[in-house]
Amino acid sequence: VSKRLFLVANTTIHELYGRNLLVNLESAGFEVTHILIPDGEKWKTLETVEKIYTYLLAQRADRNSNLVALGGGVTGDIVGFVAATYMRGIPYLQIPTTLLAQVDSSVGGKTGVNHRLGKNLIGAFYQPSLVLIDTHSLSTLPEREFKSGLYEVVKYGLIFDKSFFAYIAENLDSIKRREPMVLEQLISRCCEIKAEVISIDETETDLRRILNFGHTLGHALEAATRYEKLKHGEAVAYGMMAATVLSREAGFLEEEECERVLQTIMAIGPLPPVGTVSFREMLEAVKRDKKRQEDQTVFVLLRDIGGTVIRSGFSDERLESVWRSTLACFGD
Amino acid sequence: VSKRLFLVANTTIHELYGRNLLVNLESAGFEVTHILIPDGEKWKTLETVEKIYTYLLAQRADRNSNLVALGGGVTGDIVGFVAATYMRGIPYLQIPTTLLAQVDSSVGGKTGVNHRLGKNLIGAFYQPSLVLIDTHSLSTLPEREFKSGLYEVVKYGLIFDKSFFAYIAENLDSIKRREPMVLEQLISRCCEIKAEVISIDETETDLRRILNFGHTLGHALEAATRYEKLKHGEAVAYGMMAATVLSREAGFLEEEECERVLQTIMAIGPLPPVGTVSFREMLEAVKRDKKRQEDQTVFVLLRDIGGTVIRSGFSDERLESVWRSTLACFGD
Repeated sequence: VSKRLFLVANTTIHELYGRNLLVNLESAGFEVTHILIPDGEKWKTLETVEKIYTYLLAQRADRNSNLVALGGGVTGDIVGFVAATYMRGIPYLQIPTTLLAQVDSSVGGKTGVNHRLGKNLIGAFYQPSLVLIDTHSLSTLPEREFKSGLYEVVKYGLIFDKSFFAYIAENLDSIKRREPMVLEQLISRCCEIKAEVISIDETETDLRRILNFGHTLGHALEAATRYEKLKHGEAVAYGMMAATVLSREAGFLEEEECERVLQTIMAIGPLPPVGTVSFREMLEAVKRDKKRQEDQTVFVLLRDIGGTVIRSGFSDERLESVWRSTLACFGD
Repeated sequence: VSKRLFLVANTTIHELYGRNLLVNLESAGFEVTHILIPDGEKWKTLETVEKIYTYLLAQRADRNSNLVALGGGVTGDIVGFVAATYMRGIPYLQIPTTLLAQVDSSVGGKTGVNHRLGKNLIGAFYQPSLVLIDTHSLSTLPEREFKSGLYEVVKYGLIFDKSFFAYIAENLDSIKRREPMVLEQLISRCCEIKAEVISIDETETDLRRILNFGHTLGHALEAATRYEKLKHGEAVAYGMMAATVLSREAGFLEEEECERVLQTIMAIGPLPPVGTVSFREMLEAVKRDKKRQEDQTVFVLLRDIGGTVIRSGFSDERLESVWRSTLACFGD
């Protein structure tokens, strides 16, 4: 790591952790410049990326400068993409402060920003040189953000590890109380699973896809609600429930297992209602999804808790009916 | 190669070769959509990149779609960068139609666009899956573009192969008449040299740098003239002459060799005058160069024709004096 660091954080995180980190890094001999970005997914755009480029150029950041992403997934994705494309690539570090970023976006080298036609459509695969996770930062995380991350935690159990799923379901109360020991176990197991999946397949040709469980309809739901109404994890929770219902209806998953999955996801806490969202808009977004192949939308389905199967070729009508059944779970 | 191709060309090249290529590819069973971009370096911007993203999304290009860059270096750089960052990377093909692109920009995987503060500051390393060079396309290349490419051809001799330099100097007349056999030899040797240098060092840590001979001041000159007055090769010609003068003044290159280099570059043809360009603006641009390290500008110098040495630490005054001596060659 060179001595010149550019610390990027949103204004909220900068107040909470950035100032301290800055002081600590400086007293450790680093030359640190901080760059503030606005808070929120709607700023995950090429415009924000361009502003950071301009700032870095004005500060004469060179190829030996390091970027540091301090914050949630939005910050990590933006900073990773800037690192991938500033002067054709400079090193960067991830210091994720949200549960979602700690278990998901900070690991794996996916970087990018949204396009008005869809989420994460512009980006690159570019690995951080270091990911530093401090579970203490979760103590200040708002309740809704914390729960949003928990849905992704559940995902790892669903796609890869039945006993991890059982552990989550049984310990949901201590997890919700954010007991440090439990959180540490949770996060390290998620990172292990993600690293295991990715080390086999870094660029999403086959196995890595299982990490997208719940994300096809989840992303579509985010796009149809203009990334404003739902947190990413909440959208994924809906997407996972729909994928689970589809898994049962397509005959891959037992009724009983399906119920167990839906119950556990709902036990995490209430989700914002989405009954009024246009399913046609969601379908439009699905059809722009980057995981499409030969004009077919690919779904990750469950054949059991902890096991997946990948299928495509579902009709629009079928998807709509599955979506309606999913909403019915909430009485929507 | 998948059957779905997106052919990107500027309006000029599309008329000359794009239409035919489109017909040929379609009759060979490919599904081809063409995307037109404006002609010129000043369109090598993030805005053009964004327009291509939007077009690709509207056309539902997916990860199995291929981009095809048909044209000069500007088109190749833009398309390569779009390929590197659309849905985190899709395959692309290079069909360079200018001498400069055939000997330089199409090989090596450097992609990117300009920022208003400097050239190629935004970009990625991303290799094309195929580079297809047809020397016939050079027959329609405007004289000035052709000569602009020749300066880069000379560069390969200067940095790597003394006998290739001698071959160019001796055959300059048949080269200028664009004799097909000579051009083929010329281009293949340049690609060989570039491939040899890059295969040893893909991401520009050390050896690859020698390819930047003449580019430090060349880029600065382009920036200071707003990318409007000079062709890239012309700016590099000035940059190479200045680097050659600096090589002599710093004691690395014999007087006689220096003269031989300057004579050969000037024998290619007249360069647009740049005597009125502000050297202070050039220095500003030099200081934003991505090849800087620890606040030092690094220069590739000649210790002989065909051999290089890399040095930094030259004062602004020294660089200005070298620049003045270079301009004096033209009686500027």
